[in-house]
Amino acid sequence: MSRPPNCADALAEIAALLGDRLSRSRADLDQHARSEAWYPPTPPEAVAFPETTAEVSAILTICNAHGLPVVAWGAGTSLEAQALAVEGGLTLDFSRMNRVLQLHAEDMQVVVQPGLTRQELNEELRATGLFFPVDPGANASLGGMAATRASGTTTVRYGSMRDNVMGLEVVLADGRVIRTGSRAAKSAAGYDLTALMLGSEGTLGVITELTLRLHGQPEAISAAVCAFDSLEAAVQTVMATIQMGIPMARIEFVDEAVARVFNSYAGTKMPERPHLLVEFHGSQAGVAEQARAFGEVVAEMGGADFNWASTTEARTALWKMRHNAYPACLAARPGSIGLVTDICVPISRLAEAVAETRADIEAEGIEGPILGHVGDGNFHAILLLDRDNPDHLARARRLAGRMADRALAMGGTVTGEHGVGIGKRGYMAAEHGQGWQVMGAIKAALDPNGILNPGKLVPGGAA
Amino acid sequence: MSRPPNCADALAEIAALLGDRLSRSRADLDQHARSEAWYPPTPPEAVAFPETTAEVSAILTICNAHGLPVVAWGAGTSLEAQALAVEGGLTLDFSRMNRVLQLHAEDMQVVVQPGLTRQELNEELRATGLFFPVDPGANASLGGMAATRASGTTTVRYGSMRDNVMGLEVVLADGRVIRTGSRAAKSAAGYDLTALMLGSEGTLGVITELTLRLHGQPEAISAAVCAFDSLEAAVQTVMATIQMGIPMARIEFVDEAVARVFNSYAGTKMPERPHLLVEFHGSQAGVAEQARAFGEVVAEMGGADFNWASTTEARTALWKMRHNAYPACLAARPGSIGLVTDICVPISRLAEAVAETRADIEAEGIEGPILGHVGDGNFHAILLLDRDNPDHLARARRLAGRMADRALAMGGTVTGEHGVGIGKRGYMAAEHGQGWQVMGAIKAALDPNGILNPGKLVPGGAA
Repeated sequence: MSRPPNCADALAEIAALLGDRLSRSRADLDQHARSEAWYPPTPPEAVAFPETTAEVSAILTICNAHGLPVVAWGAGTSLEAQALAVEGGLTLDFSRMNRVLQLHAEDMQVVVQPGLTRQELNEELRATGLFFPVDPGANASLGGMAATRASGTTTVRYGSMRDNVMGLEVVLADGRVIRTGSRAAKSAAGYDLTALMLGSEGTLGVITELTLRLHGQPEAISAAVCAFDSLEAAVQTVMATIQMGIPMARIEFVDEAVARVFNSYAGTKMPERPHLLVEFHGSQAGVAEQARAFGEVVAEMGGADFNWASTTEARTALWKMRHNAYPACLAARPGSIGLVTDICVPISRLAEAVAETRADIEAEGIEGPILGHVGDGNFHAILLLDRDNPDHLARARRLAGRMADRALAMGGTVTGEHGVGIGKRGYMAAEHGQGWQVMGAIKAALDPNGILNPGKLVPGGAA
Repeated sequence: MSRPPNCADALAEIAALLGDRLSRSRADLDQHARSEAWYPPTPPEAVAFPETTAEVSAILTICNAHGLPVVAWGAGTSLEAQALAVEGGLTLDFSRMNRVLQLHAEDMQVVVQPGLTRQELNEELRATGLFFPVDPGANASLGGMAATRASGTTTVRYGSMRDNVMGLEVVLADGRVIRTGSRAAKSAAGYDLTALMLGSEGTLGVITELTLRLHGQPEAISAAVCAFDSLEAAVQTVMATIQMGIPMARIEFVDEAVARVFNSYAGTKMPERPHLLVEFHGSQAGVAEQARAFGEVVAEMGGADFNWASTTEARTALWKMRHNAYPACLAARPGSIGLVTDICVPISRLAEAVAETRADIEAEGIEGPILGHVGDGNFHAILLLDRDNPDHLARARRLAGRMADRALAMGGTVTGEHGVGIGKRGYMAAEHGQGWQVMGAIKAALDPNGILNPGKLVPGGAA
């Protein structure tokens, strides 16, 4: 897996192919050196802007021959450094492959290129009565969302990328192009290569096309915010709601610290208490039935200050506020970096997991607002640290490690949605045991020269 | 991948481990020589009846050292010879590993052993208010259903095994035991080994434990049968129903030939016309709303003779009849064997696919009743042949080949639910192109000695 010290030949061949779409400008290298996380910047040696699958295939063939690392880049919104060239090499920026290729409205499917973002897709779909539901908050590229098996606020109802990608076109390390899956609703035709590629974070292949499952825009949508006296009451409400089978479209938790940040940064006047942010989708009658059932659970748990966001604008503002929670929390503590944890536990253990995490954060004496997609059992502590305080980072890492251990002990996972990258790689052996070695064996079989996103996810390598 | 001609040493070691739970009796060999399909019997050299994961691990370690093929056996209900020892070796019969290990009712999950059948599981769950929905018709083992990524009548609403298996315990070819997935609702922690194992038909590992997703028993269930003047009208009704988003729990098509067989073998008095068999799940109000919406589509398409199965007994009889369609069709034509096709197409192409298949069968002049899980775009032609007429078999294979080509041209798959085994292996290159080679590379990485179910699914080998 070692690569020659000089990559000039490979880059010269790629430059011959792409012309000025191979960039080594400082601006391009810097732009691709960092994503939305706290990791130190690691610029690639060059950035390619392919326009076709054939170009991607040719580039990978060259990189494979020369042992040059290749990292795919969508919108740069990943949180675990998945798109950073931590071992140098070439970044493949998909911003020029961002078209809708085919809309199959009657099958509720769309074929897109990987550089298209989820918001751009939903803009394009607006007049069709259809939408793409997976919503990780950031306006991520669909290729990046597939590569990281993204999920988000609506996963409790519509599933994650695992449930909403029907097929892929993938360029393998050696330049071969494969198509996985089909446009049929199901298939038993051999290994599920689509599922294998989803969440492989660019280590097994580079996604050049996606066939996505769409959903009908609901006839009625209704959203609300309600406050609780305690974290326990809020989380117990979530557990009861999920266990009753109320088909929530969204059910998000924010603690009192996040409510305080919202008040400062979004101008809301929320009581400084734990809240649930919820949304219902369905027919008019269905939404009313769901809201009534949910309201009964809330009342039973002592929830109050039920505030309805009845207009589209109010709903958009609500979810925008929720999605901006991470930058807002950072902004509220100037000079901070945020180490974001991402555990996901069985719903029956959620209250315990959140309460223990809360107590643990308080005991460590650092700030750590908690929020999350609690309907999935997934929540984040945003551990806010002074960038230049090594003791802070050590404490945060210790905390994150204990959260991971707790999640695994409860039958959960160390990352519900952010993925592995380099940040969660240290937990993979604990989560998967020998299964992590199996991932390494699959990686070695499909990318024997180790050119695809080296240093990430699987065992071995230099990182 | 060649194995030594004499497996006596391996079997002696396994006998030392299992005692009389390693059988070489003629009765056991014969019982494991055939499943529910037309393939010629191929007995294994011995049958092992393990009782623990540790035993399975020890057996695989021995087989791997000696190069002895191993084929897992659940209930023997597979339709593409998946559980047959076509290259000899050892059959691992899981009938003694058939327990419910843990019920997590509050998480709607259950942990089971692979030999438990789906009906046994639902019996055990009856008092809990929960059920396991995947229903391939046969009372298959849950391990076999996972290994073949089974689906069935309720997949249109509840998904297939892909959607309802959260995690697995798997013994690898070299005896290592891995656990895949978790009990969390989602995870982004690396390659989706659960999905990779589902549908791998015992070629990558042997499943020894499954964590399954359960669903709440619906408050109300309602089922009905209705007749149509033409195949086109019935299928157009399905397409409209799915496209309108009516959340059908089941929507099954049978053609006039199947209706005739039902009348003979189940004592029904159905008009000899194409029918839809449907079921609605939900709240009382929800079911009424769905039934009304569906009724409007049916009326528009000229459907009639709407017959409600209002009691539990009537519903059970209805679905039992549907599930017995295959043996009933065979019985209706004594001396026949059935070659069952299994294509699945995008819902927008369903009417075309069914009509062209119908015309093609008629042109070939053989009998081929059509039925299927049309809500998924999946249907079967049961090609009924004289066992000893080579011309019949040649014609049926030609027809099946054209159906497969048609499915692929429409963006579908050659097998919606029956899997690959040996019967659909000849279509894998056409369906997956280079992707089939990728499956082979994964197989070689995880089972370098080729002991796991050789001759099936992936390229290469002796078959």
